Amino acid sequence: MKTIKETIESISKVDRALEKEVNAHLDDLTKPPGSLGNLEEYARRFCLITKSTKPILNKKKIFTFAADHGVAEEGVSAFPQEVTFQMVLNMLNQTAAINVLSQHHGIETTVVDVGVKGEFEDLPGLVKKKVSHGTKNMSVGPAMTIEETEQAIQVGIDCAQKAVNEGFHILGTGDMGIANTTPSAALMACLLPCDVAGITGIGTGIDSAGVENKIKVIEKSLEVNSELLGDPLTALSAVGGLEIAAICGLILGAASNKTPVVVDGFISSAAALVACKMSKNVKEYLFFSHASAEKGYAKFSEIFKVDAMLHLQMRLGEGTGAALAISLIEASVKIYNEMATFSSAQVSNKG
Amino acid sequence: MKTIKETIESISKVDRALEKEVNAHLDDLTKPPGSLGNLEEYARRFCLITKSTKPILNKKKIFTFAADHGVAEEGVSAFPQEVTFQMVLNMLNQTAAINVLSQHHGIETTVVDVGVKGEFEDLPGLVKKKVSHGTKNMSVGPAMTIEETEQAIQVGIDCAQKAVNEGFHILGTGDMGIANTTPSAALMACLLPCDVAGITGIGTGIDSAGVENKIKVIEKSLEVNSELLGDPLTALSAVGGLEIAAICGLILGAASNKTPVVVDGFISSAAALVACKMSKNVKEYLFFSHASAEKGYAKFSEIFKVDAMLHLQMRLGEGTGAALAISLIEASVKIYNEMATFSSAQVSNKG
Repeated sequence: MKTIKETIESISKVDRALEKEVNAHLDDLTKPPGSLGNLEEYARRFCLITKSTKPILNKKKIFTFAADHGVAEEGVSAFPQEVTFQMVLNMLNQTAAINVLSQHHGIETTVVDVGVKGEFEDLPGLVKKKVSHGTKNMSVGPAMTIEETEQAIQVGIDCAQKAVNEGFHILGTGDMGIANTTPSAALMACLLPCDVAGITGIGTGIDSAGVENKIKVIEKSLEVNSELLGDPLTALSAVGGLEIAAICGLILGAASNKTPVVVDGFISSAAALVACKMSKNVKEYLFFSHASAEKGYAKFSEIFKVDAMLHLQMRLGEGTGAALAISLIEASVKIYNEMATFSSAQVSNKG
Repeated sequence: MKTIKETIESISKVDRALEKEVNAHLDDLTKPPGSLGNLEEYARRFCLITKSTKPILNKKKIFTFAADHGVAEEGVSAFPQEVTFQMVLNMLNQTAAINVLSQHHGIETTVVDVGVKGEFEDLPGLVKKKVSHGTKNMSVGPAMTIEETEQAIQVGIDCAQKAVNEGFHILGTGDMGIANTTPSAALMACLLPCDVAGITGIGTGIDSAGVENKIKVIEKSLEVNSELLGDPLTALSAVGGLEIAAICGLILGAASNKTPVVVDGFISSAAALVACKMSKNVKEYLFFSHASAEKGYAKFSEIFKVDAMLHLQMRLGEGTGAALAISLIEASVKIYNEMATFSSAQVSNKG
């Protein structure tokens, strides 16, 4: 397995050598040029990322990384912390939203415990890679040590590498962690950068007093950890989370293997932002699945120039947006591979 | 089979009696209330339309109605008229975009010839219901007689009824007809109503001079037929098309059977507009699949207050947008049926 440093160094720019050939094929399909809109763009990007004019996309996998957050004790979430543990069991039972949507689209799912409070037995579908029993409260000091942060990133890198070795053609990100919109907003505030109030939303459903408190907690966290925020790795350790670090690692690992990776919603986007700050070549490998209804997503997409694939007012996480988006990308690749060309179908082209 | 009049009279308002029970179930699923956004709304609407708290959605069908247009002789399309006939064969060969996307999502497709120029042999997957060999040139007089218009509407009604009898749970609309953005824009201009220039776009890809010409042709068509535009049926006969009339019929037939119907893009939306003008209860049965990139769609959705499900810059027609949207609705119904509840999964609810 590659180290973090080796992984980052091996992420190259997407090679555009095949672009002309890919575009010519798209324009030869029996439809007016460009009339399948974004589907054509998804197919083009998939071909270029994977360096193929005969793209293959049928093995699909979403990793949902789960971890707890010390900052939950500041009352920033509508749900109690024990829900992280319970929801992992719900996912392993195949009855959470991510399972339903992944089954609908033939996507394999894996849950990775990278820092849930409590101990799981060995259970099918669960990868046990616990770095610690949740982060520390970031409003009083760093959430993680650098070593813990690197361990969690490495978990994600290793998951990506293993999935690529097993033949998966596209990976999706997902998260489970009560209170994790708080570190995600903190990371966005310091890395985009932007005002805390503009990036902070209701998460799982707190009221306006709760949002006010959450803003104060994030502002305090950024102040307490101010000396650590200048670098993406130290910022991640100070105001991030174990599942966010692992998602960052999954993204780095996928990009280093020229494998497209579909970014879920708000939490995954914070992780993607960290990854993009670690390597300027990462962003080209990403498909941003959906515009989360979590308030900060609009600010994130504006500043980071992201044009999300779907706009469905979802704000659940787990990988649910990634599941829907993976099916769209698969549809686009099928369009590329399975549609007739004007000549093969004996259809007259544009006059 | 029901007549047009019987069909329209039997379309009742969607009964909201089950709404409270449906909402309670959605809020009991293991996710924060409302966090699946539009998916929850799609599931709720599907339940209410079909009057069920145990919704079933697994048999899905898209009808692509094909016909030619006399107004094509005014040079309003980038493609020659023979392409309508050729594309029907391409669809029957399962190699058009609609086939690829429908197969991806397990949707059955049928092509209905309701007015293509030329004669088809008997071919699997083709329903032969030709009313005429294309409409007349609407810029010199009515495109169709009232009898032809009614015949084409009846074709759509009968298709819907047959599909419902065969057990399909959701229907989608699609179109194939060179030049058909021209009558669609004309119908929208007189029924919304709105300016012709604001609703007229490039269709399959004409240049700006072509758009100028298309605007003039539509304005002339509306002038020549001005006495027929006050009523949806006569307007449809004057400046519509055979496939547009059949799509209108499919929508009426589906609504009269309390079957949700997914409206494709610009052409299907023109047909839906006609149907909604024929019965004020129709709109509640419709899912508008995607915001077409055809210029007039933005104006249509603004005036007719439509919030399309997908925004993918597509402008192909055939039913391609409906295919993608049907899968989203199916996903929402699976969420409703297959997710665990808080109590069943032993997950703690919001504090």
